Amino acid sequence: LETGTLRRVARMLNALPPAEIARLLESLPPPQRAVVWELVDESYDGDVLAELNDEVRATLLEDMEAEEVVAALEGLDPDDLADILQDLPDTVIRQVLASMDQENRRRLEAVLSYPEDTAGGLMNTDTVTVRADVTLDVVLRYLRMRGEIPELTDSLFVVDRNGRYLGVLPLTALLTRDPILTVAEVMEREPEGIPATTPATEVAQLFQHRDLVSAAVVDERGRLLGRITVDDVVDVIREEADQALLSMAGLDEEDDMFAPVPVSYRRRALWLGVNLATAFLASWVVGLFQDTIDQVVALAVLMPIVASMGGIAGSQTLTLAIRGIALGQVSSANAAWLLTKELLVGLLNGMTWAVVVGLIAWFWFDNTQIAAVIAAAIIINLICAAFAGLTIPLALRRMGIDPALAGSMALTTVTDVVGFFAFLGLASLYLA
Amino acid sequence: LETGTLRRVARMLNALPPAEIARLLESLPPPQRAVVWELVDESYDGDVLAELNDEVRATLLEDMEAEEVVAALEGLDPDDLADILQDLPDTVIRQVLASMDQENRRRLEAVLSYPEDTAGGLMNTDTVTVRADVTLDVVLRYLRMRGEIPELTDSLFVVDRNGRYLGVLPLTALLTRDPILTVAEVMEREPEGIPATTPATEVAQLFQHRDLVSAAVVDERGRLLGRITVDDVVDVIREEADQALLSMAGLDEEDDMFAPVPVSYRRRALWLGVNLATAFLASWVVGLFQDTIDQVVALAVLMPIVASMGGIAGSQTLTLAIRGIALGQVSSANAAWLLTKELLVGLLNGMTWAVVVGLIAWFWFDNTQIAAVIAAAIIINLICAAFAGLTIPLALRRMGIDPALAGSMALTTVTDVVGFFAFLGLASLYLA
Repeated sequence: LETGTLRRVARMLNALPPAEIARLLESLPPPQRAVVWELVDESYDGDVLAELNDEVRATLLEDMEAEEVVAALEGLDPDDLADILQDLPDTVIRQVLASMDQENRRRLEAVLSYPEDTAGGLMNTDTVTVRADVTLDVVLRYLRMRGEIPELTDSLFVVDRNGRYLGVLPLTALLTRDPILTVAEVMEREPEGIPATTPATEVAQLFQHRDLVSAAVVDERGRLLGRITVDDVVDVIREEADQALLSMAGLDEEDDMFAPVPVSYRRRALWLGVNLATAFLASWVVGLFQDTIDQVVALAVLMPIVASMGGIAGSQTLTLAIRGIALGQVSSANAAWLLTKELLVGLLNGMTWAVVVGLIAWFWFDNTQIAAVIAAAIIINLICAAFAGLTIPLALRRMGIDPALAGSMALTTVTDVVGFFAFLGLASLYLA
Repeated sequence: LETGTLRRVARMLNALPPAEIARLLESLPPPQRAVVWELVDESYDGDVLAELNDEVRATLLEDMEAEEVVAALEGLDPDDLADILQDLPDTVIRQVLASMDQENRRRLEAVLSYPEDTAGGLMNTDTVTVRADVTLDVVLRYLRMRGEIPELTDSLFVVDRNGRYLGVLPLTALLTRDPILTVAEVMEREPEGIPATTPATEVAQLFQHRDLVSAAVVDERGRLLGRITVDDVVDVIREEADQALLSMAGLDEEDDMFAPVPVSYRRRALWLGVNLATAFLASWVVGLFQDTIDQVVALAVLMPIVASMGGIAGSQTLTLAIRGIALGQVSSANAAWLLTKELLVGLLNGMTWAVVVGLIAWFWFDNTQIAAVIAAAIIINLICAAFAGLTIPLALRRMGIDPALAGSMALTTVTDVVGFFAFLGLASLYLA
């Protein structure tokens, strides 16, 4: 590339919002990624880093000098800064902290003292507060003097003299109500402060249910600590959804599709190893019936069908259950009703496909006994699949394990083992 | 339940926000759902209906009188109303339209003229507009006279005398800048209007990248039609994510976990039928090698392992690819680089697990030839799985099919067929 072209590319690149530059970097293989990263204007580095996923960010930070990192992070919001600092070596963290003024350091430390996935870790400290006893006119003059209101501010927070959160004063009220009224007369006391230790998932549900743009975060004594804005909540929702999808394949939300081969190899090997153990379990069940297969080789041909139908039927129940649990719709209160329903659906589908498979097996091998055995095995397996599809995620959640992560493999183990055992076991009784 | 208790329950229920009432209704089995729906205050009916998923909403609407429906829908936002109307019989739609004043009917028709999953279908028509040539002071007085600003308004829209959208006037600017300035001097021209035909997915990306609370929707001539607010965008993001998860199991986002047994049975039967066809394909491949299995029954015992390892490895690549395509990170531009990477990861994992499986098979059956054959089959299948895991979703997208829906089953078919064919084919060459 000529320097002229490169300069033009850099100008186009830096005209994009940081989030789009971040998505672009994430979609590039490492060598090109490094080139494009060099083109990003230094004043945008921090904002782009804040938008990148953890893994890509870590690789870019690795290649930067400590001074570059400190310069890039200057002026970032405390919540973004707190996120990034966790990936940095201690020496760099100390330099970043040393470069901040006392006020900003105090704010950052407030955010850092809470885990990343809680309300405290999500919050920013750029709140605009007012007292309840002043008039709207005073507030209006204060804002005009202040000259600036942080982004995504739809409400000011009302606090008492001890910093306790009392409610919100929406900007729209400020603009429409009579200026001689006091804040106390106009404010909304309804949205309670979110305790800083609230899990991010619950914060996301709250924002969704109440259509919030921003909300106050309070400490255990009700004092205002900061605020959460809807843009960070949108990220939480997106990440949770990604997590559910990826963990069903044993992957992680922060996985970089463009990670170097050795990194991806090691990550995925682990999951394959777990799967191998469960596959050998199924294989061992087949091994128990070697003599039967030796006598009727058609069993070896048909046995994958029984396992496959059970796996699909079970995964349908499992997926609905995982989503229902995540949305709070499935609990022990309605588990019995759901189980009855899923077992009935399993029975009906079992009978339907037992007839179809039985008929095909009969024509294929011209053997009514094989047809009867595979039909019975399919009904048994689809009922077991319904049972396992609902009870496995509920049991995993009770054990504190993410149902999306372990559910799929546990289910397949059950449907393979039950499928092979039912099919070959019945065959050994009636065919051999 | 006594009447007193029932009344207390009703009071608690109606104190919840409509979205939470909707989630509660969705998590109840049909009989209890009908009872709770009766308890919901009539004035909330419309808002709750707007928050329900399509299927649950349809069942509740079925049991309502036309007059009840018309009363419930009164006062809903046009975007919500447009959503609901699509589920109603024509006679009821006519009654609803007849009950509206001309202004509201005109607004509703504007939204109804765009598909549900476009910017036009997502928009509301409750915009507050100002002219560019007036001073902020005039705007401030206008708002105070107006007395009310719609929810989730962070900006007023600036339009010319022909209704063409020119830019936004943030409320924060209105509160901090000098009132003698004109709107033209203060307004932001940056956020361009979103064309009404823009797909909802792109709208969601725009909101995420630019941290928007609301945005203007314009027609093909740049005239302001309405606005989209972040709460509707959050719903789009959540639904898209759910859709990806559920469609991998052949399910639909609007599926109601508590649907009656016959409904769930029919829905899931379809997917099981598709799976059966692919399972018989794999089974037919096994059938080609009946003679070989007849001679070496250990093959029947070990063959599920080859298929299972290929399925898991392929689904890891497939899941990353589906997510990468959805986020716009995977395209034909980097497909070659990714394919090389995935093939290498497949080769490395293939070699790793070939050794492990080979050793176990050797000890189990005391046969080095079986060990060598299964090791070779695993390497072949894991490389094919990497290839299929990336190319299948790319090919499906090119054909206009949702990769999440058909990808998983197409992949399993490939890994089963290749796994069985490689393992049994090699065995027939070297063992029989």
